[in-house]
Amino acid sequence: MKKHIYIYSPSGAVRDKAAFRRGVKRLQVLGYDVELDADALNGYMRFAGDDSTRLAAIHRAAASGADIALISRGGYGITRLLADIRYRAVSKAVDQGMQFVGISDFTAFQLAVLAKTGTVTWAGPALCEGFGVGGASDEQPDDIMEDCFHDMASGQGEGTGWRQNQALLGGPLGIQNAMVWGGNLSVLVSMVGTPYFPSVKGGILFLEDIGEHPYQIERMLTQLLHSGILSRQKAVVLGQFTGFTLHAHDKGFKLSTVVAWLQAKLKIPVLTNLPYGHVQTKVLLPVGKRADLVAEGRDVMLVWGH
Amino acid sequence: MKKHIYIYSPSGAVRDKAAFRRGVKRLQVLGYDVELDADALNGYMRFAGDDSTRLAAIHRAAASGADIALISRGGYGITRLLADIRYRAVSKAVDQGMQFVGISDFTAFQLAVLAKTGTVTWAGPALCEGFGVGGASDEQPDDIMEDCFHDMASGQGEGTGWRQNQALLGGPLGIQNAMVWGGNLSVLVSMVGTPYFPSVKGGILFLEDIGEHPYQIERMLTQLLHSGILSRQKAVVLGQFTGFTLHAHDKGFKLSTVVAWLQAKLKIPVLTNLPYGHVQTKVLLPVGKRADLVAEGRDVMLVWGH
Repeated sequence: MKKHIYIYSPSGAVRDKAAFRRGVKRLQVLGYDVELDADALNGYMRFAGDDSTRLAAIHRAAASGADIALISRGGYGITRLLADIRYRAVSKAVDQGMQFVGISDFTAFQLAVLAKTGTVTWAGPALCEGFGVGGASDEQPDDIMEDCFHDMASGQGEGTGWRQNQALLGGPLGIQNAMVWGGNLSVLVSMVGTPYFPSVKGGILFLEDIGEHPYQIERMLTQLLHSGILSRQKAVVLGQFTGFTLHAHDKGFKLSTVVAWLQAKLKIPVLTNLPYGHVQTKVLLPVGKRADLVAEGRDVMLVWGH
Repeated sequence: MKKHIYIYSPSGAVRDKAAFRRGVKRLQVLGYDVELDADALNGYMRFAGDDSTRLAAIHRAAASGADIALISRGGYGITRLLADIRYRAVSKAVDQGMQFVGISDFTAFQLAVLAKTGTVTWAGPALCEGFGVGGASDEQPDDIMEDCFHDMASGQGEGTGWRQNQALLGGPLGIQNAMVWGGNLSVLVSMVGTPYFPSVKGGILFLEDIGEHPYQIERMLTQLLHSGILSRQKAVVLGQFTGFTLHAHDKGFKLSTVVAWLQAKLKIPVLTNLPYGHVQTKVLLPVGKRADLVAEGRDVMLVWGH
């Protein structure tokens, strides 16, 4: 039986309607049954509808009975809704088999759902940027992303592996039964100190971002460091940090400077190059699920089982 | 007797050496005795020296016996030093009559000093951007800023007044004996949840920023809202938010949208147009000092006495 995907827009307005249509078509070609929320293409200023419209869309997605609730795109807007989301309705939908999938601004939803209910959601693609690529270019949706999405949809996904930018310092690393959590660094730090930030101890924290200069990335990591959030984890896993420009003023200060600085400040390992972020080739990650992590040299395996 | 100003560089490297020299000269013309820290023009990557160099510069400033310790410029770098600053030495220097003055990245120092010791420091100019303007242009340092600086230096400053962008909703406002605190919004929110964030209740919180889009400003304000920090204050005072560009995608979402949204979310007043931020015309504000605030229509007076 075809898996049923519900597309909705909790964040920014969809401006690239062609990408939206390509995304829907691609999901259909891949064998999914696609349902569109009535306000998926709504717009109010920079948002996909005003706050009550987007809130209602989230709750319709949760009530849709779909197998997968997939956001149309990220942007900005969920933070405004956090006080009014009916977290129990989201949790109940997941209990009944629904998987919520998204990225970027969706991190706010995922962390709040985890904080309020302990419910697992998926960090993964959005419709437009993940399945809607192409158009005038010959670009196709990324194979690895689509495979991971299919594994998630069919319940076959058991984990993911990748190669780091550089080898681990020290011997092999083995972490067992640690909660995977994280997402977009800017969105995540913007929730520190609020009731929507999950209190995860002994977890595996993954992070990515776009358009933030390494000094801004470092300042955000410093907040997680000084607040004690990092030292309470078993590992920090850095994904892809893209879309920034170094300046002459930096004089050698760059992303790898920040990574080395962070590792020097922490007793837990800082792993790199997780294929996740604002890039085409990305895996899906279960936010709130427990997993094992093994690493040796440059190789890392993260395994969460069924 | 001439007031003694100690210039040091706790944050970014000084690239515009001409502005630095103009600033020193201007302070001398204004009648100040200027002392330069040995590492004021040091550089290490984007920083004014490595962490230990900048930390030592802060401690030399505190031990200098000067009347005023003025940063050369902002940038980024103090957040990295917070765990190692000797706060008691700073507090002792202030007890003995020293005033610490700065802006932007310096907010991290000011908030940490307030959190750790309750000591008052001044939000105000930096040497280069405040006193070093000019050069090829005919621009002169701003009169109001220089007057406020002089008032601070001579202990004559008693407060400041300004006109808001729009009139207060409701009748006249009167707040008594409330702690003035705040600074750069990006730096301030990056300290939420850390031991360097002061726990101020019933305060007057002032905020400014540069280069942040209104949606980013809103996301930062949302963190302060959701964490309960805003509702514990008696007023929020917005200074100047500059250096951002609105896009077609915003479709009417702008800074005033954010201000109206914030006011709708809060029971305390949100005042606007404080002459403070990354602009030439700015007042000096005593971070950690108690003040009275009165407002009616567009007019606001903030009075902290001697």
